[in-house]
Amino acid sequence: MAKEVTNKVVNYSQWYNDLVVKAGLAESSAVRGCMVIKPYGYAIWEKIQATLDKMFKDTGHVNAYFPLFIPKSFLSKEAEHVEGFAKECAVVTHHRLMNDPDGKGVVVDPEAKLEEELIVRPTSETIIWHTYKGWIQSYRDLPVLVNQWANVVRWEMRTRLFLRTTEFLWQEGHTAHATREEAVEETEKMISVYATFAEKYLAVPVLIGKKTASERFAGAEDTYCIEAIMQDGKALQAGTSHFLGQNFAKAFDVQYLSKEGKKEFVWATSWGVSTRLMGALIMAHSDDNGLVLPPSLAPVQVVIVPIYKGAEELEKISERVHAIKKELEARGISVKYDDSDNVRSGFKFAEYELKGVPVRLAIGPRDLQNETIEVARRDTLEKQSYRQDGIAEAVEKLLADIQANIFKKAYDFRAENTFEVDTYEEFKARIEKGGFIMAHWDGTAETEEKIKEETKATIRCIPLDGKTEEGKCMVTGKPSAQRVVFARSY
Amino acid sequence: MAKEVTNKVVNYSQWYNDLVVKAGLAESSAVRGCMVIKPYGYAIWEKIQATLDKMFKDTGHVNAYFPLFIPKSFLSKEAEHVEGFAKECAVVTHHRLMNDPDGKGVVVDPEAKLEEELIVRPTSETIIWHTYKGWIQSYRDLPVLVNQWANVVRWEMRTRLFLRTTEFLWQEGHTAHATREEAVEETEKMISVYATFAEKYLAVPVLIGKKTASERFAGAEDTYCIEAIMQDGKALQAGTSHFLGQNFAKAFDVQYLSKEGKKEFVWATSWGVSTRLMGALIMAHSDDNGLVLPPSLAPVQVVIVPIYKGAEELEKISERVHAIKKELEARGISVKYDDSDNVRSGFKFAEYELKGVPVRLAIGPRDLQNETIEVARRDTLEKQSYRQDGIAEAVEKLLADIQANIFKKAYDFRAENTFEVDTYEEFKARIEKGGFIMAHWDGTAETEEKIKEETKATIRCIPLDGKTEEGKCMVTGKPSAQRVVFARSY
Repeated sequence: MAKEVTNKVVNYSQWYNDLVVKAGLAESSAVRGCMVIKPYGYAIWEKIQATLDKMFKDTGHVNAYFPLFIPKSFLSKEAEHVEGFAKECAVVTHHRLMNDPDGKGVVVDPEAKLEEELIVRPTSETIIWHTYKGWIQSYRDLPVLVNQWANVVRWEMRTRLFLRTTEFLWQEGHTAHATREEAVEETEKMISVYATFAEKYLAVPVLIGKKTASERFAGAEDTYCIEAIMQDGKALQAGTSHFLGQNFAKAFDVQYLSKEGKKEFVWATSWGVSTRLMGALIMAHSDDNGLVLPPSLAPVQVVIVPIYKGAEELEKISERVHAIKKELEARGISVKYDDSDNVRSGFKFAEYELKGVPVRLAIGPRDLQNETIEVARRDTLEKQSYRQDGIAEAVEKLLADIQANIFKKAYDFRAENTFEVDTYEEFKARIEKGGFIMAHWDGTAETEEKIKEETKATIRCIPLDGKTEEGKCMVTGKPSAQRVVFARSY
Repeated sequence: MAKEVTNKVVNYSQWYNDLVVKAGLAESSAVRGCMVIKPYGYAIWEKIQATLDKMFKDTGHVNAYFPLFIPKSFLSKEAEHVEGFAKECAVVTHHRLMNDPDGKGVVVDPEAKLEEELIVRPTSETIIWHTYKGWIQSYRDLPVLVNQWANVVRWEMRTRLFLRTTEFLWQEGHTAHATREEAVEETEKMISVYATFAEKYLAVPVLIGKKTASERFAGAEDTYCIEAIMQDGKALQAGTSHFLGQNFAKAFDVQYLSKEGKKEFVWATSWGVSTRLMGALIMAHSDDNGLVLPPSLAPVQVVIVPIYKGAEELEKISERVHAIKKELEARGISVKYDDSDNVRSGFKFAEYELKGVPVRLAIGPRDLQNETIEVARRDTLEKQSYRQDGIAEAVEKLLADIQANIFKKAYDFRAENTFEVDTYEEFKARIEKGGFIMAHWDGTAETEEKIKEETKATIRCIPLDGKTEEGKCMVTGKPSAQRVVFARSY
């Protein structure tokens, strides 16, 4: 084996880090908490971006770009917003360096202090709503359906590659509407776009729900989220969509003239997913051999490895491979032919398993004779000999099968790790083993906080699936209208 | 007319600004020197990005992402580099805000001062070469061919939308090679990719050349550039590609083990284009009616406007239009059908002229009867009646024709505004009227500086076209091997 990956059961956290680093997805940088996204990791992110971008455009959104910096005073305009973000801001205070008078490199030029400090955006509601004031006068200017792909910075104390980094890449949608109903509809539409993306492309099943008041986005009236379960039984919030009410419109005085000639404050939403999705993708499916990537997001879907001795044999194999490669590519399948001669094929097999390439084809001299080819699927590690004739169609079906299979596996895992619990005793025992716990809660922040303090579990969401079932709060015994989802989380 | 654009001859600079703002491309933001790129402008940038990205990938490059922040000490490692960028840096000094003890909003928390200040990247050579040290050990790790799409910040004192902004979007390629020859080849390959892009897509003819020593990128051994001429006769540098020698490899100690088992420093290039290209695109082709966009980068290539009275007529027209729209879209043409009923068609015509939509189709009741359609091309403002039958093919040809025509127009304009000048007297008179001036220069920084001080003209480049012609420096009379290109510039 080329690179050893720590066993998942031995040390889950080290297993995750090994996958990220050894498969060449990302690494820590010289800047505290910031990562370098390496080409292989970035290629997956590009596929995520392209897929989501199309989904946003298909639902009527357009892209734009707003400044990286936010004047400090803007943050203060929405009271809860500043409360939520002030403690983790990178602050720009100067705009020039100068030579150190003592001759030791460069120092900040004290003469170049900014009149007002600038915050590196942790999210862009404030600068965007300041801008929207100029864009929106009449009901004819609404809705505004804008998305931005950008980097943001939140000064996190404890960071982990992809899951929580000081700088991360994301998209943030910011929409403006004439009515509450329309804004709520948009909020719900976008969380369902995220859910569709997660299940169809990431192959990660998600619960859709609302956050409790204490877990809401700073400045939102309602936060919708999608929650996924990882293989260690912890929950990962994979995307959020916020109904912002008129909070930002009021903070930045954005009003429109209605059809009836009345001035009204505008209704807002915002919604985002980030490079954190990469963390979900990695943790949901991978195993002790390395990554398992869903074919729909794998940069390389099929790798072909020749098994040969000597240049003559390689030439014959390569000729056949080029024809097969063409057939596969004609079906839109991305293929890499690895005929590099500096490592043995066993090394290559391990390397592509580590990188999670969904299908591996191997072809040797006997295959040439028999017109066969060895097909290995990454998800089950099964190998099988196929006829070369019709191989492209077979691989295309196999890729679809792998996509469906890893989703089903993740779905079954979630089912096996979701528990209905009725007493707090049972809850406390159960939570130690991980998983989603469906339990009754009395709806108060106090009980929520008590549970969090005592068990480190939070309410991940109040599910939207409409399944209501009256019961009694497992802690206080007070009435509850439906079960909510508890878990420990990332 | 909906929005008046200042006449180009009356006030060129105001004309440019009117185009940017009134066509909805970009606007100034609340943050000094930073712009908001509006959806229509961003849609053009997305097309530029997609086209270039494909060209980079076709030449073997992959994308990655490096941190926004650069530790201050990194900048100092390459002496010329820090000299070039230290005076225009946004500096992050703190990582937290706190409530003002006096109750006035939020202030910087003095307890949260960073040990080492972070610079918001003005360019990424330093952080990337620090990273490459971990990636490159052996000749087998080379070449590294990486590109990054990112935002960068340079604290400019005088800013103009797209042309010079404090924050801008760009791509920066950073490659590492085993030999000088290979790195020089890469540098030249990428400047020629830029030139191809400029001429084929932006429809802007460019000169390819090398910068003089005093105009080189800070830290480069050689800077190649493409230079375009704008309608006011000023030059605009549209892209650069730098041969960095071993400067950054030495600064960050990046060595590789050669095939022969020898430790060698790695050779480097970097190359970039930015949202400044939007400025070139706007200024090269537009007129007093608004933008003129090359069809290959226009977000909307064809707009269709119905001319009608009453709902019944509109319905009949719309039925026909939907069929035509389908035919056009089948050919990969982007089409907008504007059947909005709140403004008159004259207003729509003016609006799409302002926005530079290459082709406008108008269809009224008489066209329905006669099976005709009115076709207006934005570049020449000519209108002509076409048969509906075969309209998609005709429009496709027309779009190609427009693309070729605006390139030719820009090419002819440059030819008319390029002058060979032999005396400094003539040069001083000529430069007042703008244009590219081809003149002999003695190759010294002193003469270059004198000319710049006395005429505000700089040497845009030493052309690479290979045309050498011995002569005498127009200022000093010393010998010169070839003419160089002078101009006033953006």
